[in-house]
Amino acid sequence: MKKCVIFIIDGLGDRPNEKRLTPLKEAKTPTMDRMAKEGICGLMNAIDIGIRPGSDTAHLSILGYNPYEVYTGRGPLEAYGVGLDLKEGDVAFRCNFATVDENFVVLDRRAGRIGPEEAKILEKEIDGLEIDGVKVIFKSSNGYRGALVLRGEGLSYKVSDGDPHKVGVKVNEIKPLDDSEEAKKTAEILNKLLKIVYERLNNHPINIERRKKGLPPANIILPRGAGIVPKIEKFSEKYNMRGACICGTGLIKGIAKMIGLDCIEVEGANGTPNTNFMGKAKALVEALKEYDFVLVNVKGADEASHDGNYNLKKEVIEKIDKMLSYVLEHINKDEVYFVLTGDHSTPIEMKDHSADPVPIVIWGKSVRTDDVKEFNEFSCAKGALHWIRGEHVMKILLDLTGRNEKFGA
Amino acid sequence: MKKCVIFIIDGLGDRPNEKRLTPLKEAKTPTMDRMAKEGICGLMNAIDIGIRPGSDTAHLSILGYNPYEVYTGRGPLEAYGVGLDLKEGDVAFRCNFATVDENFVVLDRRAGRIGPEEAKILEKEIDGLEIDGVKVIFKSSNGYRGALVLRGEGLSYKVSDGDPHKVGVKVNEIKPLDDSEEAKKTAEILNKLLKIVYERLNNHPINIERRKKGLPPANIILPRGAGIVPKIEKFSEKYNMRGACICGTGLIKGIAKMIGLDCIEVEGANGTPNTNFMGKAKALVEALKEYDFVLVNVKGADEASHDGNYNLKKEVIEKIDKMLSYVLEHINKDEVYFVLTGDHSTPIEMKDHSADPVPIVIWGKSVRTDDVKEFNEFSCAKGALHWIRGEHVMKILLDLTGRNEKFGA
Repeated sequence: MKKCVIFIIDGLGDRPNEKRLTPLKEAKTPTMDRMAKEGICGLMNAIDIGIRPGSDTAHLSILGYNPYEVYTGRGPLEAYGVGLDLKEGDVAFRCNFATVDENFVVLDRRAGRIGPEEAKILEKEIDGLEIDGVKVIFKSSNGYRGALVLRGEGLSYKVSDGDPHKVGVKVNEIKPLDDSEEAKKTAEILNKLLKIVYERLNNHPINIERRKKGLPPANIILPRGAGIVPKIEKFSEKYNMRGACICGTGLIKGIAKMIGLDCIEVEGANGTPNTNFMGKAKALVEALKEYDFVLVNVKGADEASHDGNYNLKKEVIEKIDKMLSYVLEHINKDEVYFVLTGDHSTPIEMKDHSADPVPIVIWGKSVRTDDVKEFNEFSCAKGALHWIRGEHVMKILLDLTGRNEKFGA
Repeated sequence: MKKCVIFIIDGLGDRPNEKRLTPLKEAKTPTMDRMAKEGICGLMNAIDIGIRPGSDTAHLSILGYNPYEVYTGRGPLEAYGVGLDLKEGDVAFRCNFATVDENFVVLDRRAGRIGPEEAKILEKEIDGLEIDGVKVIFKSSNGYRGALVLRGEGLSYKVSDGDPHKVGVKVNEIKPLDDSEEAKKTAEILNKLLKIVYERLNNHPINIERRKKGLPPANIILPRGAGIVPKIEKFSEKYNMRGACICGTGLIKGIAKMIGLDCIEVEGANGTPNTNFMGKAKALVEALKEYDFVLVNVKGADEASHDGNYNLKKEVIEKIDKMLSYVLEHINKDEVYFVLTGDHSTPIEMKDHSADPVPIVIWGKSVRTDDVKEFNEFSCAKGALHWIRGEHVMKILLDLTGRNEKFGA
């Protein structure tokens, strides 16, 4: 059976500057251009025309999962990302360890960027608590960050953030966001939890030690981004393919784990413009020996865009082009269908995601080629794929690789 | 914040004649062509491919309101257009003052085009009546035309027209169009109302005077186009923009008033090929100083199309090009995103609306340009916007002006 790659350049698309250029248009990308020449090109909106997606909702959509059905907030992805084993109906949150005074006024939203060793010890004071019959699961990741999960009957994700998102103000009282009993109960449990956490952490030996060193204590957690763990069909069941994911960011790892893609760890893959580009390229070539499907996400171009750094975005794209050159040299075109695209545009002028479509090319044996000779926002608009949506990508791949069912006789 | 204009050339699109020309293709339109060169072009169906819209449903769709949800008939738009203050659930009709004989046979569908002064006096005989607990609201407009509203419990818009749409036949008995009690009740009330109107108007001093002058009396009203006033989110709430509308036709004013756009009156703007084109252009430039959003409708090309007048349609389009030239000279491109399009095609050969898509260009700073250099039905088909629907227009504008919410992280 043929294999599939979806290679996502995060935040790839842009809007033209005064010279009518974009980082992608200006970048030297001989391999991407070769793929455009040999493949079928177009534009894509991960969710729909005019919809400005997050990376999470965009990836879900491109992988064939309707984000309006499976996505309620970032919490579950964070929790999957840190390796928690979740159940349908769990309510999950992103969390920071933070520092508050005795009146719960936030002094440091990251508790002085407390390190992973100390965080792992404090984690045990929270993980395993039980409040009103609801189980509390908590796991820290990379120090001050963590994921909080509530497991039990009658919970809701319709609750406000405890995190006030700034210092000098009190921790938010968590409030129900609708009139349901479930939301009311969930908010009450969280408010109780924060008090318990403060009581258990404020004078914890770790924090006594930190105060001695002049460091802010990690004496509270600030939950945000509530979401409910959806009923979700695993990728392998949905598509009958063994799938893997190569990415450096927790958010995408969370998606991969939620849908059951194996996460392949690459040393130095960190979701920044300094990621281990070639390490990821080599990992992809290796993964294709074992898996039917590989999702690759390279985050650096998006990071550069959020910083408004045009040249850095261009450089990241050129480095990705070298990755692709390596990959194409080491795979058999007769065996692999390769989708190269972005999850969304992140225009330099906006420093944030936009709804502008991204270029897409589907490359592989016997795709219908078109006249597009360069891979960028302008040229791909003339391609034979026209303007598709993320939900079409997996369907087209299944068809190209002979995996879809015929509807009718 | 950036501002937005949607400029609608009513009935813009056409089908090619034997020379493969359309009025738009043949017209000299240097400004539209400049916008095509500097902007991003495509085709648009206001509602969907193959759907032949009215101007009302097309405008609603382009403004982001689903006409299948909010539109049941033209009555409410007429009623909003004449300035009535409507409530959700009101059932509204378009009406003509007409002339009938003693057997209710229609002799003149416009009561000799009775003038506004006389109509205003007769209006008082109808407005304020109450029948079976239902309040009757009636307002004449421009003489023989008017709007009729029924307000009360248990009404339905599923009733037939009283207007037989021709002379020499009896006024239609109004019938329920479904089996509901509401439709039955509404039809009964309307039939009672028409009898009462005849009794009150037939020998009214105005009509005695008209008969003396040899003029047909206005002794009946003929309701048609029943529709229910929908629950509708005001434009300012939906998009967080202050919006205005510049148009000469009552129908579009009705839409503007229904969604809460301020109607800017322009002297001599009358919805015909002789409208005050430059007055509207100047009003647009002024409005953009005060409003975030301006909808402009120029009706003349549609009027010419309904008359099958190819040359007049071309002339109207050329006059609109001069309007646009004035507007572009007087606005700041860095501040305004400008959509130029039509609401539907009105092919000369059909003398009526068709489902052929209309050309569209979105012009403004940092839109992705394409290779389209002329604004017409053929060239725009090659643009980077491809073939969009009306519902996408506001979403794209919100995105370009940084007003849309991100879905996800």
